[in-house]
Amino acid sequence: MLKRILCIPDSFKGTLKSSQIIHTIKNVFNEYLPDTEVIGIEVADGGEGTVDAFLSILGGQKVSVSVKGPHFKKMDSFYGILPGNVAVIEMAACAGLPLVKDNPDPRTTTTYGVGELMISAWENGCRKIIVGLGGSSTNDGGCGLAAALGIRFLDKEGNSFIPTGGNLINISKIDSSNAHPLLMDTEIVTMCDIDNPMFGPQGAAYVFSPQKGADPMTVVLLDEGLQHLSKVIEWDFGIEVALLPGSGAAGAMGAGMVAFCKSTLRSGIETVLDIAHFDEQLKDCDLIITGEGKLDVQSLRGKVPIGVARHAKKAGVPVICLVGTIGEGIDSVYDKGITAIFSINTAPMDYSIAKFKALENLEITASNLARLLAGMNHFKA
Amino acid sequence: MLKRILCIPDSFKGTLKSSQIIHTIKNVFNEYLPDTEVIGIEVADGGEGTVDAFLSILGGQKVSVSVKGPHFKKMDSFYGILPGNVAVIEMAACAGLPLVKDNPDPRTTTTYGVGELMISAWENGCRKIIVGLGGSSTNDGGCGLAAALGIRFLDKEGNSFIPTGGNLINISKIDSSNAHPLLMDTEIVTMCDIDNPMFGPQGAAYVFSPQKGADPMTVVLLDEGLQHLSKVIEWDFGIEVALLPGSGAAGAMGAGMVAFCKSTLRSGIETVLDIAHFDEQLKDCDLIITGEGKLDVQSLRGKVPIGVARHAKKAGVPVICLVGTIGEGIDSVYDKGITAIFSINTAPMDYSIAKFKALENLEITASNLARLLAGMNHFKA
Repeated sequence: MLKRILCIPDSFKGTLKSSQIIHTIKNVFNEYLPDTEVIGIEVADGGEGTVDAFLSILGGQKVSVSVKGPHFKKMDSFYGILPGNVAVIEMAACAGLPLVKDNPDPRTTTTYGVGELMISAWENGCRKIIVGLGGSSTNDGGCGLAAALGIRFLDKEGNSFIPTGGNLINISKIDSSNAHPLLMDTEIVTMCDIDNPMFGPQGAAYVFSPQKGADPMTVVLLDEGLQHLSKVIEWDFGIEVALLPGSGAAGAMGAGMVAFCKSTLRSGIETVLDIAHFDEQLKDCDLIITGEGKLDVQSLRGKVPIGVARHAKKAGVPVICLVGTIGEGIDSVYDKGITAIFSINTAPMDYSIAKFKALENLEITASNLARLLAGMNHFKA
Repeated sequence: MLKRILCIPDSFKGTLKSSQIIHTIKNVFNEYLPDTEVIGIEVADGGEGTVDAFLSILGGQKVSVSVKGPHFKKMDSFYGILPGNVAVIEMAACAGLPLVKDNPDPRTTTTYGVGELMISAWENGCRKIIVGLGGSSTNDGGCGLAAALGIRFLDKEGNSFIPTGGNLINISKIDSSNAHPLLMDTEIVTMCDIDNPMFGPQGAAYVFSPQKGADPMTVVLLDEGLQHLSKVIEWDFGIEVALLPGSGAAGAMGAGMVAFCKSTLRSGIETVLDIAHFDEQLKDCDLIITGEGKLDVQSLRGKVPIGVARHAKKAGVPVICLVGTIGEGIDSVYDKGITAIFSINTAPMDYSIAKFKALENLEITASNLARLLAGMNHFKA
């Protein structure tokens, strides 16, 4: 009686990837419920792996293209074109932290190449572009990307330059009169899974730039640069982006996507549900299996299981959530559409041991769940 | 669609009693599946609490009676009379270790009072008597009980005496010619949940008498006494009881029950399933919930979940097993009739912490199970 199950789990941070979880659940359900189709939808958060995840969901092609890397040197990068001419780009593909591991410096790194990827996608016919934020080496507020798209940044002498984290303070005016046409005719969606504002104690510089190589003095400089950028954006575009949740993502590229590309900021899961036509798929679906490492009160702020559950609830489809840890005070997750939560732990065991058993424990828990559903299925028949 | 659930869990050793588990599951299922009837069957193992457990399952009356205690002094004891004039006795009620806590001595303590309880039950019309072993202070091989029932133990001078652990060696002959009529007309069932033989390294004296107060010299003496008793039993009754699994239970009273009372030794769970008319109850039952602290390869040797599952399988009723720990290599439990196993652990957590959270974790796990069954119920409707 269970004809179709959608499996759409977040990764278990530090232990299991979304794709591993899907693979395990498919195998297990195939064993105990061979007549049930299990559809896996890999969840991406905008960071590294987002393009592959989207291609795995929808198919499509991966496009290779040479663009400027984080240090303005040409490099081979890529993006995906999904069916329907929707492009998916991960900024990490040409501005990611692993690309500068020998020489990280958020004062000088750029997102310029991301703009070039967008132009390539547009030239290939894409009129919808999804840009994933995450894993950045930059702190340029997306100015590099904007410059690639023809937006000019002028200093007080009126000279045009490509701002990076360390010289944002020199921006005197932003001129978008000669911007690339894609900014007029293309829908741009930005994926990001963090809520940080553009600057301040919770902002891009203070929270993330140390891991990109900034020392304490540099952090202050970068933060001041972002404060300044937000003012110039307000003067020249008339919009306030500083406090927008997610504007601090990817070295404040979140702010730039909103200001320069008129993009919306969406969570990874909402973007995935959108491009996977999740609401359509729900119509033929009898059960959803989702999950994350720890389901807690933070999960209510739009993380994967709750995002999935909200849609499932409208469609009346039950949702099982597999987790490492069931946190405290989570009763309201049930109101959001989660039917039941099961922890994968199979014995009392400290996390230092359990983390190495995550895959095995997932398999045991999923197989008992499948056995139960098969058993109840049988019983009901 | 789930009309009736039978809940029949073993205790989780060291953390949860069978009755607590039933109570929790009833509450939780009542909340999420209010139209489902949950019948609890408390599991007893023959030790302390067995009489109360049986009375809680079937109703009946508790009978108070004065009999000899472990030191041959009169004391107030009790047994239960279940519907159908079936008596249930726990040997611990007049020969238990807590009764001699100031002066434990397995050389001198007796099971005499247990025989008196049996006579009282017979005089009250009981023609089936269940005797629970466990928690004993004795090592008399059941000779005290036999003496109360009119069996005479003679030394080599032909003098009759009531043997205790320390003087079993003096038994020369056992004369049952004047035994109490209950030994002729009454079905006697002995409950015990241990497999130890009468004597030897795994026997009653070596394994259990130290916790009853025996020093190493005494252990040897007691073991020799039991070896001698087994020989006299063989000479006078023609039966070998020494290696019977469970003959070492309750200071080798297991052996005495077989030899003197022609009793069968049954596991607690088989006895419970029998007196609770479990097979009858299964007919109207849609699901069984059982459990134990750790489900492992040892569980296959007839412990509660497997005992329950064997019967359920015949009736085609699914069985959910809730446990603290899912052990390794337990795949064959599914063949025995277990449908699915869930661990109550809700997070990675060492046992030193988890044991204090057992009740809370049980409640969380049971409520998610109930939510799932309710959700699937709803979905199927």
